[in-house]
Amino acid sequence: MRALYIGRFQPFHFGHLEVIRNILIENDELIIAIGSAQESHTKKNPFTAGERFEIIRANLVHEKFDLSKIYIVPVEDLNRNSLWVAHVRSMVPRFDKIYSNEPLVKILFNDAGYSVVNTPLFSRSEYSSTKVRETILNGGDWEKLVPVATRDYILRVNGVDRIVHINSSDKC
Amino acid sequence: MRALYIGRFQPFHFGHLEVIRNILIENDELIIAIGSAQESHTKKNPFTAGERFEIIRANLVHEKFDLSKIYIVPVEDLNRNSLWVAHVRSMVPRFDKIYSNEPLVKILFNDAGYSVVNTPLFSRSEYSSTKVRETILNGGDWEKLVPVATRDYILRVNGVDRIVHINSSDKC
Amino acid sequence: MRALYIGRFQPFHFGHLEVIRNILIENDELIIAIGSAQESHTKKNPFTAGERFEIIRANLVHEKFDLSKIYIVPVEDLNRNSLWVAHVRSMVPRFDKIYSNEPLVKILFNDAGYSVVNTPLFSRSEYSSTKVRETILNGGDWEKLVPVATRDYILRVNGVDRIVHINSSDKC
Amino acid sequence: MRALYIGRFQPFHFGHLEVIRNILIENDELIIAIGSAQESHTKKNPFTAGERFEIIRANLVHEKFDLSKIYIVPVEDLNRNSLWVAHVRSMVPRFDKIYSNEPLVKILFNDAGYSVVNTPLFSRSEYSSTKVRETILNGGDWEKLVPVATRDYILRVNGVDRIVHINSSDKC
Amino acid sequence: MRALYIGRFQPFHFGHLEVIRNILIENDELIIAIGSAQESHTKKNPFTAGERFEIIRANLVHEKFDLSKIYIVPVEDLNRNSLWVAHVRSMVPRFDKIYSNEPLVKILFNDAGYSVVNTPLFSRSEYSSTKVRETILNGGDWEKLVPVATRDYILRVNGVDRIVHINSSDKC
Amino acid sequence: MRALYIGRFQPFHFGHLEVIRNILIENDELIIAIGSAQESHTKKNPFTAGERFEIIRANLVHEKFDLSKIYIVPVEDLNRNSLWVAHVRSMVPRFDKIYSNEPLVKILFNDAGYSVVNTPLFSRSEYSSTKVRETILNGGDWEKLVPVATRDYILRVNGVDRIVHINSSDKC
Repeated sequence: MRALYIGRFQPFHFGHLEVIRNILIENDELIIAIGSAQESHTKKNPFTAGERFEIIRANLVHEKFDLSKIYIVPVEDLNRNSLWVAHVRSMVPRFDKIYSNEPLVKILFNDAGYSVVNTPLFSRSEYSSTKVRETILNGGDWEKLVPVATRDYILRVNGVDRIVHINSSDKC
Repeated sequence: MRALYIGRFQPFHFGHLEVIRNILIENDELIIAIGSAQESHTKKNPFTAGERFEIIRANLVHEKFDLSKIYIVPVEDLNRNSLWVAHVRSMVPRFDKIYSNEPLVKILFNDAGYSVVNTPLFSRSEYSSTKVRETILNGGDWEKLVPVATRDYILRVNGVDRIVHINSSDKC
Repeated sequence: MRALYIGRFQPFHFGHLEVIRNILIENDELIIAIGSAQESHTKKNPFTAGERFEIIRANLVHEKFDLSKIYIVPVEDLNRNSLWVAHVRSMVPRFDKIYSNEPLVKILFNDAGYSVVNTPLFSRSEYSSTKVRETILNGGDWEKLVPVATRDYILRVNGVDRIVHINSSDKC
Repeated sequence: MRALYIGRFQPFHFGHLEVIRNILIENDELIIAIGSAQESHTKKNPFTAGERFEIIRANLVHEKFDLSKIYIVPVEDLNRNSLWVAHVRSMVPRFDKIYSNEPLVKILFNDAGYSVVNTPLFSRSEYSSTKVRETILNGGDWEKLVPVATRDYILRVNGVDRIVHINSSDKC
Repeated sequence: MRALYIGRFQPFHFGHLEVIRNILIENDELIIAIGSAQESHTKKNPFTAGERFEIIRANLVHEKFDLSKIYIVPVEDLNRNSLWVAHVRSMVPRFDKIYSNEPLVKILFNDAGYSVVNTPLFSRSEYSSTKVRETILNGGDWEKLVPVATRDYILRVNGVDRIVHINSSDKC
Repeated sequence: MRALYIGRFQPFHFGHLEVIRNILIENDELIIAIGSAQESHTKKNPFTAGERFEIIRANLVHEKFDLSKIYIVPVEDLNRNSLWVAHVRSMVPRFDKIYSNEPLVKILFNDAGYSVVNTPLFSRSEYSSTKVRETILNGGDWEKLVPVATRDYILRVNGVDRIVHINSSDKC
């Protein structure tokens, strides 16, 4: 069985890590789709698809996951819900089921005949990308909210400054 | 050093394999970008990005490449040459140089300050995706032109029929 | 005289029906343009253009309108106000005037030399698509707000569930 | 049973008429989708979607077809084969099967699980839109190649001049 | 030295004029880029790129600026931050530095290696396009907020009516 | 009277110069619209809009035209003929008539109610952008085909090399 897991990973945190670990227990292979791949330098999407790819990969390596069982694929938005499933299917390797808690994703994939499984919840209030970005913005202790591989990458690309500057803009 | 290698891989053949092998001798890591990712079911681009991803990955596994050193990334066309380098950079992990024999790719990346290296030539007349597609279309012995992992995948998704049907269309 | 009437019809309700009835008293023919045709599965646009087309058509048949006098045409958004009139003109049969109460539509068509007529008001507070969607969402008695042909279609495609699920999403 | 028939109808000729007549013998209802709806004023697509809509409708009225069984729907191109079926499905009423002789259309709809039926052939060499456009361009007797409703419309919008002028352009 | 100054100029006011005057003291030449060129008839962007071009030019002429030192260039939005600098560079003459107080513009151009200079502040609270539009909308004394060339143009194209009507729309 | 003159100016040659000179004799002001502004680094469109803008401007300055009477405006393609006139109108200052020998431009602007004037012919066989590009490509004496301001700019940006390299690519 090959599973699909879609997220924006802005940025990748402990919750994502646990979801991946659990999916790989229940499945042979996993596709991690990086959604909104064309977005970057906005309040909700500070990092490019390429940067998010590197962060995810660094985490997988750090956690010693078997890379031969995992595919990472950036997917641009299409902004047409009725075409979303067909778009994802064309961009990623074939998959058997999809993990998601997002109601829209569930409807669209269910209507297309896919089995949609809820991702296990790891205290969503505690681990969320929104919370990480807000903590960075407010000068809080964001480093404990993300794995070390995420932290190192953000520090290396000067991501804290980027998030602070972007949030002082009217444009994004 | 991390190198970038861009192709459409329609389909992946022995020439691609040798280029990858050589790049990995000269570099620590390699990004394989699957270009024209949004295209499929046309004469020049019969396979989807997801299918091409699977074929490439199957070849890497079959050849026992170290997957922790290779990134595979589908990249949609933008159809604006002046934005092409910025687009690729946003979609893939950071890279230090690029391998290509394509004059347009060379100009655009050179103008952006990148080092562009010629890919070694493996009798281009013999190994080319165009030749593979034409041989499939003409009912020739295409299986000897591609690695076994490519052959198996094309047979499994009924790719021969697809190529034959597409080529009888006025539309693609 | 052929009149144009543009709406999103999310969903078609008694107010739309009365507007159509009135336009057909004053004109020989009517074009019903289904705007934002590319949208679906969002809070403001739950139904696809194809579904909206079916609902409108079912209402016209149920009300025994003369179909030889009515054209139904889905029109995708262009998101450029300065091109909107030219876009609509290219997609629908020629028309002599347009019925609308929407200030932007009035300005754009007036500037293009068209006569714009106010649609008669049928207690807008009572009959509005927004109110129908909210009543569905809140579990209220929405069925009395729409004609039987609309109600039957929404029930058949499980539209109530769709609207409820979409509204629990952050994405649409 | 509701059937789908997709064409560009540039312009609508006797062959189209016979296909429609035959489909309606075998089915309860018919959707006529006007493809490449965004195209006009080019050599291959001289008429706008709105004009083509009017021509088709005039023919249906002239032939006394039952309009309550026929839907006419312009559909813009998406230029992504892997999304084409989902796009068409979102824009038109639900359908059970599709009539087409076009190999690409067949593959795409077959892969999506639809039944695709060949349209009956009415001496394709004799009745084709390409032949009509070429005959108009060359000053030949095009009027005998199209039904009277098509002829009248083309004459009314000065379509002959348009086709001649467009064909002297380098641009379309 | 050639400087770039990007704005939406909805509409051009005294603050813009002073920025231009100052940039031309410090530089040989100036490119004025009209951003969001594709937008018009919305609350934030009431005027077309062509109208904004005429207003800016009328101001430059009225103020007797040397036109051989100034380039005015409309630039459409691309809506991809990672491509923005490459897009602007392709559309305007080459430039050496950029004047902006906008944090996003600063990050993007700095990352691309450009020098970004703050524009002098001319009591931003007093002179802002937002304030001009609001004053027009509220029937206030907007004419004193803009140079005479801006005022005359707005009056000539009936811009006050346009802004009032647009603001009574739900759509823009 | 303000006239509009649209071209791609790939590159600007003696014929363009004479057309401009003649239009300015018959009109008070002239808008030079640079079409296909988003294109560059292709066989038909080697130069960016920004580069073409600089070349045109350099020619106008060299020829001592009165810059207060001339507007230069890059215009991106829209690829929808039915929207072309509305698009151009939104991007450039208002104009009274248009100069063109291109049949498609004539039809579209005539249909929109504009007066279209033929540009005077300056031995089109001798002065054409196509001929300039071909002469550059073939190593011929292209410098005598363009004004000195065009020649100097092309030499400065290494345009000869660019054209040669682009033409050895399969991609553009």
